[in-house]
Amino acid sequence: MKRKALVLFSGGQDSTTCLYWALKKFGASSVEAVAFDYGQRHRIELSSAKKIAKLANVPLTILPITTFSKLGGNALTGKLEVKNSGVEKNGLPNTFVPGRNLIFLTFAAAHAYKVGIHDLVTGVSEADYSGYPDCRQNTINALARSLSLGMDFPVKIHTPLIKLSKSKTVMLAKKLGALEVLAHSHTCYNGKRPPCGRCPACKLRAKGFLEAGIKDPIH
Amino acid sequence: MKRKALVLFSGGQDSTTCLYWALKKFGASSVEAVAFDYGQRHRIELSSAKKIAKLANVPLTILPITTFSKLGGNALTGKLEVKNSGVEKNGLPNTFVPGRNLIFLTFAAAHAYKVGIHDLVTGVSEADYSGYPDCRQNTINALARSLSLGMDFPVKIHTPLIKLSKSKTVMLAKKLGALEVLAHSHTCYNGKRPPCGRCPACKLRAKGFLEAGIKDPIH
Repeated sequence: MKRKALVLFSGGQDSTTCLYWALKKFGASSVEAVAFDYGQRHRIELSSAKKIAKLANVPLTILPITTFSKLGGNALTGKLEVKNSGVEKNGLPNTFVPGRNLIFLTFAAAHAYKVGIHDLVTGVSEADYSGYPDCRQNTINALARSLSLGMDFPVKIHTPLIKLSKSKTVMLAKKLGALEVLAHSHTCYNGKRPPCGRCPACKLRAKGFLEAGIKDPIH
Repeated sequence: MKRKALVLFSGGQDSTTCLYWALKKFGASSVEAVAFDYGQRHRIELSSAKKIAKLANVPLTILPITTFSKLGGNALTGKLEVKNSGVEKNGLPNTFVPGRNLIFLTFAAAHAYKVGIHDLVTGVSEADYSGYPDCRQNTINALARSLSLGMDFPVKIHTPLIKLSKSKTVMLAKKLGALEVLAHSHTCYNGKRPPCGRCPACKLRAKGFLEAGIKDPIH
């Protein structure tokens, strides 16, 4: 039987590149995508995901996660306190959910099990500073092991971008023929379209395209 | 600083025994509990959890999980198909979510991180037949490793019942002084109180008490 892959898909630049990486590796009609509706600040993310999945002709499953807002807030009383500063004592944003990526991958793996897919693809990277330990290769390896054991179902997690800088990711996207569709990917933290160009996400994206010497089709 | 523990708590017999195990090991006022509201068939489970946590004087956090129903049903269309037979081609119930215990433990770990607790306690057991690979010790070990790496925060998962038969668990509950409170624990699959006595869960519970030679306080 032909192997199929499930791509964790956010509608952003990195997971869009992963989607096209998977299409190349596993073949058209052998790729599915999963996105999460977890109360992200900008609904435009999910619109981008839907649009790109349609352009790539890839079935997209959207799974809801309501738990993060409870975890991000004051879970003990069940009341979510939205602080203006948005920062807790430990310096992390008060909506920060540790190990969030583990949850995404575990739900994705449960869905993959249901549809008989053993190969997951995620766009995590160790190269650009993020500070998130759940984006590191050793975490991903340990998780693949616990998922495989816990579901009694072999799970492989592919991380094609793990060692790539943003500019290398841009070059990979070009090589895979994914440049054009990146016009629809969402990056801006301020949820702006066209992107604000001033937030950290916009700046990182611009730097990647600049260093790659490629024009960002989003403009 | 004194170590604290977070018990994964369902209001059932096993997790109630774990709650008292943790109170003995970590000390009163060093134990918290977390329960999950995931659309379980019988709301009486959560009522039991609240009642027992109150009796044990343990703070209880209830976290919502809405994702299971989407995963259990037809996730592609988003419509949950409740089949009368309740069984899919692979012989598993169509509401079965593989690796569900991994999700519970990962959300619990995220909450534990937020409140600075490194020790989780879960009532999983390899002794009684369940067929769930996410209840085995090797899965739990792999998960503890991926959680510790993924949150950059050491997580220990205690499994005090892992090798205990149901009757041994009853004897442990007695030794820990948890027998009386088991009158409020919920077991019956049919959501009955007093319990129906005929469902597999009621039968397993009755067998455990019978073999331990102890009267079940639920009656």
